[in-house]
Amino acid sequence: MLDVCLLGTGGMMPLPERWLTALLTRYNGSSLLIDCGEGTQITMKKHGWTFKSVDTVCFTHFHADHISGFPGFLLAMANAERKEPLTVIGPKGVERVVSGLRVIAPELPFELKFIELSGPEQKLSVNGYQITAFRLQHSMTCYGYTLEIPRAGRFDAARAKAQHIPIRFWNPLQKGQTITDNGVTYTPDMVLGEKRRGLKVTYCTDTRPVARIADYAKHADLFVCEGMYGDPEKLEKAKEHRHMTMYDAARLAAAAEPQRFWLTHFSPSMMHPEWYMRDVKKIFPAAEAGEDGKYLDLCFDDE
Amino acid sequence: MLDVCLLGTGGMMPLPERWLTALLTRYNGSSLLIDCGEGTQITMKKHGWTFKSVDTVCFTHFHADHISGFPGFLLAMANAERKEPLTVIGPKGVERVVSGLRVIAPELPFELKFIELSGPEQKLSVNGYQITAFRLQHSMTCYGYTLEIPRAGRFDAARAKAQHIPIRFWNPLQKGQTITDNGVTYTPDMVLGEKRRGLKVTYCTDTRPVARIADYAKHADLFVCEGMYGDPEKLEKAKEHRHMTMYDAARLAAAAEPQRFWLTHFSPSMMHPEWYMRDVKKIFPAAEAGEDGKYLDLCFDDE
Repeated sequence: MLDVCLLGTGGMMPLPERWLTALLTRYNGSSLLIDCGEGTQITMKKHGWTFKSVDTVCFTHFHADHISGFPGFLLAMANAERKEPLTVIGPKGVERVVSGLRVIAPELPFELKFIELSGPEQKLSVNGYQITAFRLQHSMTCYGYTLEIPRAGRFDAARAKAQHIPIRFWNPLQKGQTITDNGVTYTPDMVLGEKRRGLKVTYCTDTRPVARIADYAKHADLFVCEGMYGDPEKLEKAKEHRHMTMYDAARLAAAAEPQRFWLTHFSPSMMHPEWYMRDVKKIFPAAEAGEDGKYLDLCFDDE
Repeated sequence: MLDVCLLGTGGMMPLPERWLTALLTRYNGSSLLIDCGEGTQITMKKHGWTFKSVDTVCFTHFHADHISGFPGFLLAMANAERKEPLTVIGPKGVERVVSGLRVIAPELPFELKFIELSGPEQKLSVNGYQITAFRLQHSMTCYGYTLEIPRAGRFDAARAKAQHIPIRFWNPLQKGQTITDNGVTYTPDMVLGEKRRGLKVTYCTDTRPVARIADYAKHADLFVCEGMYGDPEKLEKAKEHRHMTMYDAARLAAAAEPQRFWLTHFSPSMMHPEWYMRDVKKIFPAAEAGEDGKYLDLCFDDE
């Protein structure tokens, strides 16, 4: 099971009634956070998620509304007695930017391991998550993220038997171990059926609506996407600042065909995103306006 | 009139129901902020105070809970179309620390002018405020601040007349201008009576209760002071981390005899500061537990 919580839905600046956009996911005891604007630690606490289990933080880019809360977040993790290293992923320069911010959080009881992204796409395997970072089109280098939890095939006893694999190896092979015994090597694929559908979440903000976003979000279980403006008259403003309207985002969703589609990163000038949802749904009927704390638990197909 | 708003009352970390400690004052159209932890811009918005008129920001010290909100605050000021320079006052190193944080707010439409404090006491005259910064006793260099609005004497027409000062100069002299006419110099004190009592606010956090604090807060209209712990058993913890209990603070107030006394900078572990006020009031009866958004307008004596 993959838990997903949209910690905030604001863009540009935090408001008294709206936290800045950030996504927290939890799988197999390991939490992953995408973006950390001012106040993210507060909304985490409000929704009861723990800091200690955050193993990975991904940054889309370095505009303040996506990273300004990180020093406080690190101190909250330290206060939760985190000792294990934290993996920090972001565009080239993430180590420099985080080091600048750490002028007020210089001492931490855990190590930061940086992964700096470059190029149009990068695939990573981190703490049980398969991560694909893909470059977006914003006013500074910015990446979207697809998180996948792969799922092995079902155990196939008949196949194992047919290949004369000793029974004592079945369980470790099923768990993914490779075993060598008396010069013979047994691999997990020898006892497993075809790979099954895993879980997929795509997160995308801030950007203009380039077509490849739909490829990265294709058939996702959840597609979380910027929809900064609802008023169609704000299209020019969206283009100027390299953002998307809710309709831009909905057209991407229509191409990507995700199971669920949440809009987020709302302009401070848009107090009621839900007012525009009727028109958004004309483009993609399953669209939902994000809300602070919006939550979902995604399960494998037959769980 | 001097407006004062305690924007938050938390110490160490922001909580869903408690903003970090910061004080905003407004006098003659010029606002002054002391400290700016994560979320200060949000509580400013919540209480309806404007960013544009903030001319001065004073930092007590560089622990994250006192400064982590500054990049976002600067961007909120930029968004409010501030163009005039901002004076930033803090301990030695304030320019280096703010520059580090500005890695995520590099471009601002206004200039920052830094004043770095050194020594046990420094007096400044900034944007109509007479500021006395005084060194505290914390785990890093930390200053308290006394803000004073001085008040000139009443206009005394009889004195002006007796000194044969031309009537056309009375008004500018009353307003504080010095005038030279035909080789004769007229100064404001020639037409004004004795100086009248001004307004005084003292702000003090984070520190152990050193006696000089009471001298700086002597007869203040408002003394805002750290009272991190209410449980008397936390005294050793307060000593270890160079903080004060509510009783330490109340004893300072008893020596300083301010008109009003607000406690703030409450530990995240203390959810109900008001539970301890009965014992605090035994030491200083006028003591009040601070609350987020607690507000006061201070007036000159006969206004």
